Amino acid sequence: MFFELQHTARGTAARAGRIETAHGSIETPIFMPVGTAATVKGILHRDLKEDARAQIILANTYHLYLRPGTQVLEQAGGVHRFSGWDGPMLTDSGGFQVFSLADCRKIDEEGCRFASHIDGSKHLFTPENVIDTQRSIGADIMMAFDECPPGTAPKEYAERSLELTNRWLARCWEQYERTQPKYGYRQSLFPIVQGVTYPDLRERSATFVQRFPADGYAIGGLAVGEPAEDMYRMIEVTNAVLPRDKPRYLMGVGTPANILEAIERGVDMFDCVMPTRNGRNGMIFTTEGIINIRNEKWRTDFSPLDPAAPSFVDAAYTKAYLRHLTISGEMLAAQIASLHNVAFYLWLVREARRHILDDTFAEWKPRILEKITKRL
Amino acid sequence: MFFELQHTARGTAARAGRIETAHGSIETPIFMPVGTAATVKGILHRDLKEDARAQIILANTYHLYLRPGTQVLEQAGGVHRFSGWDGPMLTDSGGFQVFSLADCRKIDEEGCRFASHIDGSKHLFTPENVIDTQRSIGADIMMAFDECPPGTAPKEYAERSLELTNRWLARCWEQYERTQPKYGYRQSLFPIVQGVTYPDLRERSATFVQRFPADGYAIGGLAVGEPAEDMYRMIEVTNAVLPRDKPRYLMGVGTPANILEAIERGVDMFDCVMPTRNGRNGMIFTTEGIINIRNEKWRTDFSPLDPAAPSFVDAAYTKAYLRHLTISGEMLAAQIASLHNVAFYLWLVREARRHILDDTFAEWKPRILEKITKRL
Repeated sequence: MFFELQHTARGTAARAGRIETAHGSIETPIFMPVGTAATVKGILHRDLKEDARAQIILANTYHLYLRPGTQVLEQAGGVHRFSGWDGPMLTDSGGFQVFSLADCRKIDEEGCRFASHIDGSKHLFTPENVIDTQRSIGADIMMAFDECPPGTAPKEYAERSLELTNRWLARCWEQYERTQPKYGYRQSLFPIVQGVTYPDLRERSATFVQRFPADGYAIGGLAVGEPAEDMYRMIEVTNAVLPRDKPRYLMGVGTPANILEAIERGVDMFDCVMPTRNGRNGMIFTTEGIINIRNEKWRTDFSPLDPAAPSFVDAAYTKAYLRHLTISGEMLAAQIASLHNVAFYLWLVREARRHILDDTFAEWKPRILEKITKRL
Repeated sequence: MFFELQHTARGTAARAGRIETAHGSIETPIFMPVGTAATVKGILHRDLKEDARAQIILANTYHLYLRPGTQVLEQAGGVHRFSGWDGPMLTDSGGFQVFSLADCRKIDEEGCRFASHIDGSKHLFTPENVIDTQRSIGADIMMAFDECPPGTAPKEYAERSLELTNRWLARCWEQYERTQPKYGYRQSLFPIVQGVTYPDLRERSATFVQRFPADGYAIGGLAVGEPAEDMYRMIEVTNAVLPRDKPRYLMGVGTPANILEAIERGVDMFDCVMPTRNGRNGMIFTTEGIINIRNEKWRTDFSPLDPAAPSFVDAAYTKAYLRHLTISGEMLAAQIASLHNVAFYLWLVREARRHILDDTFAEWKPRILEKITKRL
């Protein structure tokens, strides 16, 4: 994997860059739609690529490990061939899911024992086997196995957790070096910076991860309950320590505002379920502000969904029709909302990139933020 | 509306024709995907038109009357402008739904009192107000309000029911003539032939409906529990009486086999929820036979869904991936299956039409039937 830092916008830490992977290149800053089970919910691959213009998608190791399982993925020749998504992909380590979704029974030095949310079957994730699983999946970017404490964790817990995460990272890296890609192309492994909202822990973590000559570094454990201002401060603290010449990935974040604030502070990569999950619930992010499409006020609004937005659905469907579909519980509502929202997020990071390259990011950001965060 | 009978295939009653409506022309025989709430479940309009090549879709008066309601539809300027589907549309009368979906409390000479399946609210459908509602919806083809007895109804009930349907038809027609289209284009009204599986009742009904100079005639009350052979015989009996120069629409039918048998007996138009509903449940109609995609045997079948079928999803996705999505309860499974199945149905009627025009329908039909009805 290759990362080129192309430009840093005047008066900010906002960066434009380019990542090369075996499955194509990615222009940063970038938003990665979440494809949990190797499908971005509600969006056909063709539309994800050609309409929303996704450049890389994320899949969840926890979900793919349970279904279809590594055996099927290996027989298919990896997740790209299995799913038909031939662009770049990233997998998380499954850590976040076993602590949240699954019933993590026991966490100790070895790893985490958990019960599947599907059938209750018992499993163990360790730093080593999580790397093996990600080798079987075959994403271009793999993530280290970490513990992710809540955003309000007391310092003592945060510190103990960070130490465990660091020891796990060393084991992940060792397993990464001991193993080879299964499908003939490079897989990168990104370490994850933790430390809750404690600046000294974040600094310590951001220093520690650099022991490993990774292709990129991630910032984890944010947007998990702490105030947004704390998150922004942790990003600043962390990015001050992380190397400039590697991509920085802020995990699981966030709202359009979170993303712009993080871009301004030097983050290059994002993922979040918000555009799809909130879309399924009727929340539409538009170029004019945020719409709750269930609201009575859209009942007879026959104007296009978002005429200034780039997806074909924005001109093809009206607010009143989308409201009708949503109220009626029609699948098509989720399809339109998901495609629109994902296309909107990708449009937003493309716009950010354009303004970084133009050196107009600092002026553009507050103007666009005011528009798109308005509740309509 | 204009219908041109283009050709009848040698040795059969299978017909090829063309219907002209205000929203475009339709080549028959045709399958009409069902868009209950003005959406064919799981399929974006663009894909319905460009990929599946749908020429006309059906919407349900009962559903649209309840949601979004005629007031919203009128403000939008009719269902085409409301939904964004700009091709031909047909609405049923709501009769079938009030007898099945809704709780039809009381049926008498006046009409049917029923409780909404959504909120239990009380409503009355009469032959007159069902025409008014369809005027407000604005489909190109409207259907008469009829009673649809079960396929096993005893003759006395069938006869009484047919007489009520005939009186209702006269009232529908009167209301149709008394009212004007609301959006400046012609709306046709199709009477419906009933009579359960009693040849003399079907004949009497097919004669009666011709009192009304309609643009087309429908055959209702079939595929509601009677043996398929009875259905085919009723189609023969009915089509022997219906005029040759008007399109014939067999309502709510059916499997690919049902459709080919009915085409052979001179039917021109079909609708059925089967491709979408069964698709959502994992049943895939392919050019090689019928697949239950949940079956273990597809787990590691990485071949394309149906290489010989015309939808882009047929080459873009594999059986193993579609199985994974289905087993995982992913929305995308329903989207792929629905688009594939609808495209398959439309491909099948296009093939039928081609073989009718070629005079090879009689030879082609048994060959294709053998292939596509196989359980894989």
